[in-house]
Amino acid sequence: LQFSEKLAQIQTDRKSVLCVGLDPDLSRLPKHYSGKDPLESVLDFCTRIVDATLDYACAYKPNLAFFEALGVGGLEVLKSVTEHIDGRALTIADGKRGDIGNTAKKYAHSFFEEYNFDSCTVSAYMGRDSVDPFLDYPGKLVFVLVKTSNEGSGDFQDLIVNEEALYQHVARKVEEWGDVAAGEVGFVVGATQGDTLSELRTRHPNIPFLVPGIGAQGGSIENTMAAHAEKGRVIVNSSRSIIFASDEEDFAKSAGLAAQKLAKLLI
Amino acid sequence: LQFSEKLAQIQTDRKSVLCVGLDPDLSRLPKHYSGKDPLESVLDFCTRIVDATLDYACAYKPNLAFFEALGVGGLEVLKSVTEHIDGRALTIADGKRGDIGNTAKKYAHSFFEEYNFDSCTVSAYMGRDSVDPFLDYPGKLVFVLVKTSNEGSGDFQDLIVNEEALYQHVARKVEEWGDVAAGEVGFVVGATQGDTLSELRTRHPNIPFLVPGIGAQGGSIENTMAAHAEKGRVIVNSSRSIIFASDEEDFAKSAGLAAQKLAKLLI
Repeated sequence: LQFSEKLAQIQTDRKSVLCVGLDPDLSRLPKHYSGKDPLESVLDFCTRIVDATLDYACAYKPNLAFFEALGVGGLEVLKSVTEHIDGRALTIADGKRGDIGNTAKKYAHSFFEEYNFDSCTVSAYMGRDSVDPFLDYPGKLVFVLVKTSNEGSGDFQDLIVNEEALYQHVARKVEEWGDVAAGEVGFVVGATQGDTLSELRTRHPNIPFLVPGIGAQGGSIENTMAAHAEKGRVIVNSSRSIIFASDEEDFAKSAGLAAQKLAKLLI
Repeated sequence: LQFSEKLAQIQTDRKSVLCVGLDPDLSRLPKHYSGKDPLESVLDFCTRIVDATLDYACAYKPNLAFFEALGVGGLEVLKSVTEHIDGRALTIADGKRGDIGNTAKKYAHSFFEEYNFDSCTVSAYMGRDSVDPFLDYPGKLVFVLVKTSNEGSGDFQDLIVNEEALYQHVARKVEEWGDVAAGEVGFVVGATQGDTLSELRTRHPNIPFLVPGIGAQGGSIENTMAAHAEKGRVIVNSSRSIIFASDEEDFAKSAGLAAQKLAKLLI
């Protein structure tokens, strides 16, 4: 099965397009972890978040930076977390890599074979040969950064090239590359970007979108829903507003409730 | 001391602007490692390469993909390799990260504090807030991708925005951001890009350039030298042509000779 077919299935079953972003910032973990071993704390935190939110999530997106920042052992934790998810939801390695062909090949190997992620995020500034190696994997999907959710996303992405914005140009090229690939391509399109989501949806009706920026980043649910054409075509990510819904010992319960509530708003 | 001051010092002492890229591709290691433990092999390979090339190198650039592709233990190896270098040359974490502010902060922490790298590479597609956190570290330098050495580098980097190429625009913006930062900025500019190097050098006389693409990628030494204004302003990277100079047991000696030869050509 292609990624988007699995996604459509799981979204229908769970009535949810929600992806829970795993950004286990040590400094924001619930208070009772304070003073305990960081690696064990993050592993316990993440697995409890997964268990509490699984009924309301179609996917999990570990943000690799937060695992890498824990040092070498952080990657062990990342692996344990994906093993704990164990195919019960789709997984997206959020690392935004982008490098020359022989190097991109290694990243793809790492994400798709070492860690067995279903998907990953990629930056396309270096062009086609930096994206292609990720597209060689049937059943896997690559979300390429098109229009991101952060404040500085306009600095380069909105520049006009040949009467269209750079991000529009990137989107067109990436869809072309995807047409000849074994794997699938998707776009990262921030929820904070006003009409951009619906405009890109109109131009690219069949491309799956990964939409970050809901919640802590302030993206609106209405705008997001405007881009929600059909199942398997959009994944809406929220990280901090779910995983840090409470800093008490019952944080997992609060995360589950936050996920349930948001999943319902998004359908 | 700023990164570029340390760099000028070490380049003068060793009469070398050469950076040795550590891309320990398992499938290309010397034959005698065949069948041995991959992690131990890569560690042994890298430390022997470092020992053999140290007299001719001002910097080492581990390509994170090749360490990550070894699985969790690969990062342990990366840490051991940087510890083995132990300040005897500058180190550049080549990971080309680029993400929203709170995430970029974690990557910066990881590179500069967990692994104690002197520098790292960053992709700026996401704009200023994706680069700023790396610039908060005095004494560290951030090489931002401007014009890369790969075949697809023209796909987006050469697009015309406001009468200049996107890469020229990125270069201007990044220099501005660097002017107000605690750390320093540099540019990644491929050696394979014809006049681009000298053109960027003219526009940005004071910015350190990291120049990949010499050797296996076919970049010309003449073009590279055209951008070589003064010490502390350019680092020329070669990876495969040095570390895989021989696949026999005396590979380290061959790597040392290749480094010595290239270092001399670059002065």
